[in-house]
Amino acid sequence: MAGRDLSPIRAPQPASERQYAELDPVVVIGTGLVGASIGCALSAAGIQVHLRDRYRSHALVAAGLGAGTVSSAQNSAVKLVVVAVPPDAVPEVVERALARYRHAVVTDVASVKKPVMDALREAGVDLSRYVGSHPMAGSQYSGPLTASPHLFVDRRWVIADGSGSAQAVRRVEALVALCGARLIHLAPADHDRAVAEVSHVPQIMSSLTAARLREVPPPDLLLAGQGVRDVTRVAGSDPTLWGQIIAANRTEILTQLRAIRADLDQLLEGLGTNDPQAVTGLIAAGREGVSALPGKHGHPGSALDTVVVEIPDAPGALARLFAEIQAQGVNIEDLSIEHDLAKPAGYLSVAVEAGHAEALRAAMTASGWELRS
Amino acid sequence: MAGRDLSPIRAPQPASERQYAELDPVVVIGTGLVGASIGCALSAAGIQVHLRDRYRSHALVAAGLGAGTVSSAQNSAVKLVVVAVPPDAVPEVVERALARYRHAVVTDVASVKKPVMDALREAGVDLSRYVGSHPMAGSQYSGPLTASPHLFVDRRWVIADGSGSAQAVRRVEALVALCGARLIHLAPADHDRAVAEVSHVPQIMSSLTAARLREVPPPDLLLAGQGVRDVTRVAGSDPTLWGQIIAANRTEILTQLRAIRADLDQLLEGLGTNDPQAVTGLIAAGREGVSALPGKHGHPGSALDTVVVEIPDAPGALARLFAEIQAQGVNIEDLSIEHDLAKPAGYLSVAVEAGHAEALRAAMTASGWELRS
Repeated sequence: MAGRDLSPIRAPQPASERQYAELDPVVVIGTGLVGASIGCALSAAGIQVHLRDRYRSHALVAAGLGAGTVSSAQNSAVKLVVVAVPPDAVPEVVERALARYRHAVVTDVASVKKPVMDALREAGVDLSRYVGSHPMAGSQYSGPLTASPHLFVDRRWVIADGSGSAQAVRRVEALVALCGARLIHLAPADHDRAVAEVSHVPQIMSSLTAARLREVPPPDLLLAGQGVRDVTRVAGSDPTLWGQIIAANRTEILTQLRAIRADLDQLLEGLGTNDPQAVTGLIAAGREGVSALPGKHGHPGSALDTVVVEIPDAPGALARLFAEIQAQGVNIEDLSIEHDLAKPAGYLSVAVEAGHAEALRAAMTASGWELRS
Repeated sequence: MAGRDLSPIRAPQPASERQYAELDPVVVIGTGLVGASIGCALSAAGIQVHLRDRYRSHALVAAGLGAGTVSSAQNSAVKLVVVAVPPDAVPEVVERALARYRHAVVTDVASVKKPVMDALREAGVDLSRYVGSHPMAGSQYSGPLTASPHLFVDRRWVIADGSGSAQAVRRVEALVALCGARLIHLAPADHDRAVAEVSHVPQIMSSLTAARLREVPPPDLLLAGQGVRDVTRVAGSDPTLWGQIIAANRTEILTQLRAIRADLDQLLEGLGTNDPQAVTGLIAAGREGVSALPGKHGHPGSALDTVVVEIPDAPGALARLFAEIQAQGVNIEDLSIEHDLAKPAGYLSVAVEAGHAEALRAAMTASGWELRS
């Protein structure tokens, strides 16, 4: 937390008249990282937010950070209730909120959607005013102190289909829009499978890795570099919260973890018999898997085109080459070296956005570089 | 690689006269990321560096980035040879370099030290001019294109004890110093155990996680957030290189991976029987393990002191509190909320460097905040 930015919150776009009419006022129940951040985003957009938490100190801190007010709402006026409590408590708190705020739509932000909906159905709750949702944002930190109105900007936010009237869904969509997130509609079971794959299982792998560090002699830990820190960062997460998330989604997680155990067993066997292919194969599979992840903001990577330049056999020439590419105002998206048996020097392959390649080629040729067509 | 910085290299400190006398000129064999970065650091310090690579295109690119020259050295003048080739090739290349550069000290940078030394001993090589070493730096990228003279700054760099004359060791220490790294001497076996713990096993766990992503339906991948990206970042590493590293250190790695499999089996059983303690216990163990990692640069965290402030029950007060702490010029190292059954509002615990706490307490009291003593 060193260097934490405590400067005042930059306001996002104010709510439109329609958004204001859909949402104002909102009650947020549970002022941990996610609840407090939602409060901050809505407050910054001009929506009145009432904060509730079983720990008044959390609600006060969230309020102090700009997430809303700790004063009570007029129950019948509330348009939207956001339930941001730990997963185990969600069904009960949603049920109580539906009863208390008779004209409000109630959403929750739990990381697992089908068990919540099943529990509400089992309890016989009328689900026309309930819409489950899940913002794909968070961090290894918990509690309101690291809240930010920008936590959800450009992140995916899932709305779970299968409950809620059209009007109810619209209100939650307005919430997602005001938080700056990118909306996805998913069936609850599809959501739960997807988060097991891309969130819960990676969390467990991180924790398994980190748990072994307890056995490492402290001097050995001095050799830790950025790699192990990245792998274990999410292992710093809250055990109670994650215990509940994983338990709630255990069927999906079990299936996927069993597949990993099979991969691990295969690797152990390969290491035992010193079969180099077992190791190289796993690392290659991992590299393939990581390249399947979409670009940072969930965009499919934009189309790239490649300009291939003969590598100059003269000192300083390459630095000049890079300087000229930059002077063209073109961003280099990727660089690689190609060996060519017929040419000792080989080629440098420069990937740029497709729209820029032609102009770059013309400019490079004009400057005397040898391009491969 | 988007936004890659192609601006000219900032020069580190120039070599001292003693360092210059110890090292100039250097031959770097193998101009991948590590070899090219060493070349860049030494060249920037004013040392003459001759680059060699089985792929001339790599050496040319490294030279173009400022790592040295592709022209040949006068063999008898060379003071230090850095062997930065893939692990499997290291013993043979070291042996040839010792024969070719008769007055040079030869070091290697392979990630595993005992097998290299054993292979050289077995080949009957005189080890008085050989000193094994290992800079704890690198990335998921390979090849010279991502080389940087700053790659090793503040990173640990191990010198493996058990070979090399005192003078030979001094030369490699001069190399470490010029690269800006932090020196550690370790026995080869201790080094290999430590890197298995903090590098090779985390790499495997990252690859195991990433390999499963190949089976994930592409729409599910849209839900991927920062967590899975962090866990799988090093899984982007080069399969051939890592296959060799892991195979070379397989005995240590096997022991540690078997312990992880036992943890995984226990978790699978707990999930199968819906034992919440199995999950919470693992996440808690992981959190404990990750907190055992030393601070970012390997310093033990500096001593902190805590100032405990009653949380103000008034809107906007907390923002004012933070502003006042910042106005004191004190960096907040950590923040947490303490519940207190006797006080509805609770306390905010503000950790600052030990030397700053007293002045902060005085200033806060003077401004009217309620502190807990």
